[in-house]
Amino acid sequence: VNLILFDPAEIRADHSVDATGVHARHLTRVLKVTPGQSVRVGIVDGPMGVGVVSSIGDDHVTLDCTFEPHTPERPLVDLLLALPRPKVMRRLWPHLASLGVGHVILTNAEKVERDYFDTHLLQPGGFRPLLIEGLQQARDTRLPRVSVHKQFRKLIEAELEGLCPDSRRIVAHPDTGGVPGSAPSVADVLRDRTSDTRRVLLGVGPEGGWNTFELDLLASAGFTRVSMGERTLATTTACIALLALVHAVVDYH
Amino acid sequence: VNLILFDPAEIRADHSVDATGVHARHLTRVLKVTPGQSVRVGIVDGPMGVGVVSSIGDDHVTLDCTFEPHTPERPLVDLLLALPRPKVMRRLWPHLASLGVGHVILTNAEKVERDYFDTHLLQPGGFRPLLIEGLQQARDTRLPRVSVHKQFRKLIEAELEGLCPDSRRIVAHPDTGGVPGSAPSVADVLRDRTSDTRRVLLGVGPEGGWNTFELDLLASAGFTRVSMGERTLATTTACIALLALVHAVVDYH
Repeated sequence: VNLILFDPAEIRADHSVDATGVHARHLTRVLKVTPGQSVRVGIVDGPMGVGVVSSIGDDHVTLDCTFEPHTPERPLVDLLLALPRPKVMRRLWPHLASLGVGHVILTNAEKVERDYFDTHLLQPGGFRPLLIEGLQQARDTRLPRVSVHKQFRKLIEAELEGLCPDSRRIVAHPDTGGVPGSAPSVADVLRDRTSDTRRVLLGVGPEGGWNTFELDLLASAGFTRVSMGERTLATTTACIALLALVHAVVDYH
Repeated sequence: VNLILFDPAEIRADHSVDATGVHARHLTRVLKVTPGQSVRVGIVDGPMGVGVVSSIGDDHVTLDCTFEPHTPERPLVDLLLALPRPKVMRRLWPHLASLGVGHVILTNAEKVERDYFDTHLLQPGGFRPLLIEGLQQARDTRLPRVSVHKQFRKLIEAELEGLCPDSRRIVAHPDTGGVPGSAPSVADVLRDRTSDTRRVLLGVGPEGGWNTFELDLLASAGFTRVSMGERTLATTTACIALLALVHAVVDYH
């Protein structure tokens, strides 16, 4: 934990806050704080700052906080992801928050099992703690928005424009044609700036790949196909790798 | 599994092979193969090819294989990694093999606990099946070489040149100076070609970071510092992200 995040409602008017539960244990047992010591703090979707330990109780640590004037910018990358199986999704949430995603849009696809949608990991009570874990690792406060869509076609044709207006759109698909480099790389596509927007919407398919109908629909909705080469990566590996490649272009250009 | 890998010793002189155990179950229960059907096969550190099902027994499937004339090129990227805790290392092995690493060099550092070295995951019997899993995912046959070094200074000063001759060397460290972009990016450093070698040795530190002594020693051994920005990533996220960024430059330039 490189930052302790609090909900806005936890911060009192005088900017003091009681760290309880896992936060209190982290402060007393791992960081072994003493009164007067400073730790990095933040407010979910608000500013970061510094908290000075004012008192230590049996089950809580009180911090007096000073916050920066500005809230960090929302990450410039959104992710459209064909829902993976629950075991994979559970591990993926913290990675996504730590790399920085503005909006996570989870969708059905032919090769997504319908019962993947039944997991509690798609409820705020399931994913929120895992996203907070990733933000605390990366020292960010911007909680990704999450939306879940069981109808791929309706999402792409009717809903996506409202969810992610003004994004450049790319979709990753393995380059299995046998000709390395036959699809352009992430950097090739994103460095070719023809629009003013800095935001990117990245599409990542299921482990079995998008089918032809899905790829065609994505193409008609403005997604440019990109490839990382001939290797077929598992969902977790692919998401992390692709998000890193997109951030490397949009954050510094 | 996108490829079934066999040890060279399993292949008979007539290029037939018996898939047993987990391979046999995958063929009969997941792929539900019938005689005459083809599946992708490969030989560890050898060529890929196609196996035609010739017979199906109670606990084995016999394949008649035809192999390509060439063995895939060894991945151009090597990884110098401060050993993470065993739970992290266990999950990391398949990611490393699927992204493509020529040589995994595991090292001590100040912020590495000594008992991390006691895990069976550093023995071939521990890591080999996890690397094979990653290769079968990515459709590669090149098993990463692995070496383990408990003495950081001896490794850097005396052993590294023998392990990784003729590599460009970069080391990742979070950009916590408060000035985004104060350390160059992976692409900035690697696109600036001043040597003929295509191989890259990527250094990734422990979760608490390299200390000053370690960074200085790496610098004196020719490692150029790179950054992915101000976010502090967990070891798994950082390794996958950095390997993707390095491969994106070296595989296509």
